[in-house]
Amino acid sequence: MSKNLTTRSEDYSKWYNELVIKADLAENSGVRGCMVIKPYGYAIWEKMQAGLDTMFKETGHQNAYFPLFIPKSYLSKEASHVEGFAKECAVVTHYRLINAEDGSGLIVDPEAKLEEELIVRPTSETIIWDTYRRWVQSYRDLPLLINQWANVVRWEMRTRLFLRTTEFLWQEGHTAHATEQEAIDEAELILNIYADFAENHMAVPVIKGTKTESERFAGALETYCIEALMQDGKALQAGTSHFLGQNFAKAFDVKFATKEGTQEFVWATSWGVSTRLMGALIMTHSDDQGLVLPPKLAPIQVVIVPIYKGMEQLETISQKVNPLVNELRSKGITVKYDDRDTHKPGFKFNEYELKGIPIRLAIGQRDLNNDTFEVARRDTLQKETVKTADLVAKIEHLLVDIQENIYKKAHDFRDGHITDVNSYEEFKTLLESKGGFISAHWDGTSATEEKIKEETKATIRCIPINAKEESGVCMVTGKPSKQRVLFAKAY
Amino acid sequence: MSKNLTTRSEDYSKWYNELVIKADLAENSGVRGCMVIKPYGYAIWEKMQAGLDTMFKETGHQNAYFPLFIPKSYLSKEASHVEGFAKECAVVTHYRLINAEDGSGLIVDPEAKLEEELIVRPTSETIIWDTYRRWVQSYRDLPLLINQWANVVRWEMRTRLFLRTTEFLWQEGHTAHATEQEAIDEAELILNIYADFAENHMAVPVIKGTKTESERFAGALETYCIEALMQDGKALQAGTSHFLGQNFAKAFDVKFATKEGTQEFVWATSWGVSTRLMGALIMTHSDDQGLVLPPKLAPIQVVIVPIYKGMEQLETISQKVNPLVNELRSKGITVKYDDRDTHKPGFKFNEYELKGIPIRLAIGQRDLNNDTFEVARRDTLQKETVKTADLVAKIEHLLVDIQENIYKKAHDFRDGHITDVNSYEEFKTLLESKGGFISAHWDGTSATEEKIKEETKATIRCIPINAKEESGVCMVTGKPSKQRVLFAKAY
Repeated sequence: MSKNLTTRSEDYSKWYNELVIKADLAENSGVRGCMVIKPYGYAIWEKMQAGLDTMFKETGHQNAYFPLFIPKSYLSKEASHVEGFAKECAVVTHYRLINAEDGSGLIVDPEAKLEEELIVRPTSETIIWDTYRRWVQSYRDLPLLINQWANVVRWEMRTRLFLRTTEFLWQEGHTAHATEQEAIDEAELILNIYADFAENHMAVPVIKGTKTESERFAGALETYCIEALMQDGKALQAGTSHFLGQNFAKAFDVKFATKEGTQEFVWATSWGVSTRLMGALIMTHSDDQGLVLPPKLAPIQVVIVPIYKGMEQLETISQKVNPLVNELRSKGITVKYDDRDTHKPGFKFNEYELKGIPIRLAIGQRDLNNDTFEVARRDTLQKETVKTADLVAKIEHLLVDIQENIYKKAHDFRDGHITDVNSYEEFKTLLESKGGFISAHWDGTSATEEKIKEETKATIRCIPINAKEESGVCMVTGKPSKQRVLFAKAY
Repeated sequence: MSKNLTTRSEDYSKWYNELVIKADLAENSGVRGCMVIKPYGYAIWEKMQAGLDTMFKETGHQNAYFPLFIPKSYLSKEASHVEGFAKECAVVTHYRLINAEDGSGLIVDPEAKLEEELIVRPTSETIIWDTYRRWVQSYRDLPLLINQWANVVRWEMRTRLFLRTTEFLWQEGHTAHATEQEAIDEAELILNIYADFAENHMAVPVIKGTKTESERFAGALETYCIEALMQDGKALQAGTSHFLGQNFAKAFDVKFATKEGTQEFVWATSWGVSTRLMGALIMTHSDDQGLVLPPKLAPIQVVIVPIYKGMEQLETISQKVNPLVNELRSKGITVKYDDRDTHKPGFKFNEYELKGIPIRLAIGQRDLNNDTFEVARRDTLQKETVKTADLVAKIEHLLVDIQENIYKKAHDFRDGHITDVNSYEEFKTLLESKGGFISAHWDGTSATEEKIKEETKATIRCIPINAKEESGVCMVTGKPSKQRVLFAKAY
């Protein structure tokens, strides 16, 4: 298998698009803006789902499922929400096709027009809060801690595999609480789960922060986010958790009887991560040889390639490999023994590099003589020869080491790309040269934020949580500022 | 918690509807025909998914994800498929809403009309085979063994929770093979997996068979099915597996180069089970007290209810319960210790009976004195007192015993409701009295099948696989027949 992969320095964007296709992760479908997630890509997404789902359940959340369709009128109930989500969406207007009388084929049956149009959910706050009205009567019914794994549709004009697609897969949590503080705590709990998952499963370092007012979720009082940095110096929002106040409770009339017998509106959060995380994963670690996967999310952690001439030698090698495979599997390590005789070892080496398998073992005649295997790690591409007796321990160690190493590498890159600047000129120069996160003072107004965005395409990615207070002046207007915020161009 | 559940003998249909609501499994939503699957119902569905997913993967299948939308023209490509599926479906015609100029609210933007309408998938053969054309070039690319977990929409006029809903969740497998025999073997492999899952996880006995031509999936050459019998004597189709021949390969031009270098069309199967299985599960086992769940699918297998006066006594009980909870969990048994002080034991007993928790433990002062627990099993409602030292072994044994017992009970009921009849008069009488499966001779024509359906509402549920050959005459036309087939009224 020849890779023919454009390099990152040649054209980062092209490199990404090619890599997604060549590593068999996803491809465009015949439906504009909708992707097909291929088995290898989906296997990674399943590992992400499993990791997150466990974390949600360990913190008391339950899964449920709400309708795909949202009646048009629901969208209008929360004023700012409708502005954000009722724009570009898929609208179901009819419920039947018929054969055209002139024999020209299938047409929409004009008789089967819906009285009220249905919107394919772009997010589910409205349909869920319409349901919660029936579920919540008393403080005893709270909190509701519910998540759903679902597909959603946002009619995007410009799409890119995983990063921005018309249909995507995600989880969306929707919780209801008796008090404001409890809802804020929930939004922050989830932010920490997202950060933990990004860093410890995906090996993607993230900065936790809050969004400015203009970047907030439509309908939220506060949007918490995790922001990652890609190798081209652009930021990627990897997850958001929203404190919604009582906006949706008021819009859908969801009240509860308190212990004291009064009626109060419920407090809400919502939060989500999507198949966009696949884009973050791919762009954070991969290199010009292909995908690099963290061992914790790799569908196959170890691949074994025999180097042989003739079936007799293959048989000898297999006798050595089979017990190793069993031992690794008994330790919960996923292993593939690729003894296909339709492809040469060089082809297989290329394929597994492209697909980011963390550890590749090879064994040929010299290894048989010496009772060894060749061990190659994908992250550094280093190879070494290891005695069979030491191999399992070596692999266990390497899986941990690769996970840590790619995190450290990404972390070093990220930290090397956070730059303090104090003037707008410096800001513009740096943005076009080094890129990355630029830490600068800002006067706190949407007007200034908008001006910067228009002039430079950079947005405020977040107001970092726990950042040190520092008096300064806005780099654009010279007005006072108490804290630096992080700017970047973003996906 | 008072149950107030209609009994099965009073009104079976009402009993079912009430049970689904009262046991917190699902409810209707604000969107016509679409249900909300509540956390408790979804937890059962997740266990079903996990069981099936493991079985699929163990037999070499991989998951992937294909678009929600299908361009209208795709549906027309396979002639019989379009007749079956292009009728009642959700049609997306526009991609934007705007605010009406008269301020009356959101309206569909007439400027945002799609050039080609998109159908929300009722099933995915067409979009998937459009994709497979790109994936299959050579015999080396085959077989493709792919499954997806997804939502689908069929515009149903009369809906019932889980049994028939406009949107439902399912898995759909779509495989591509080099030879006819391999595709038939695959369809049969899946049929056996479905039957295994129904019987050994759901404890629902099923009959394996093939559908008659008129009951086949639109586009299939053969439809295999598993049929279950509900307590009201009506049958329920619980899963289907289709041998599609080369119909979709020809419609979407999917050819492969054989080893010999010729070009051949690919052979196909598709197969699916849906949230309808929830309906089968509920209706097979449950009784007038509520849900009865097989231990293998119960989200909570054991519930423990303390019977106490005052916090001090609760504390004493908890000291005895906590180590038990830990020991059961260490054995992989899911346990809930319900020490809520907001509800009385009687309320809790009712609630857990209604929700079908297989085993309920209770512990009060007398049990403390005697070092015992009261053990109640949900299937038979029998109670006994068990020494604490014997409790874990007792529970492990009971979980197996309940799983087997409810299967046996359903199996006995089913076998007691398969009746051979030899005349159409007898057939009609039996159908209206005892119901169940009626085994009768049929002349093999769609005309006779249709006549019986019109006159009695009974359909041929299946032609049983491996049934003994038996010469006879069709009960309606008197024409010769080689094998009895199974008729029933069905969900």
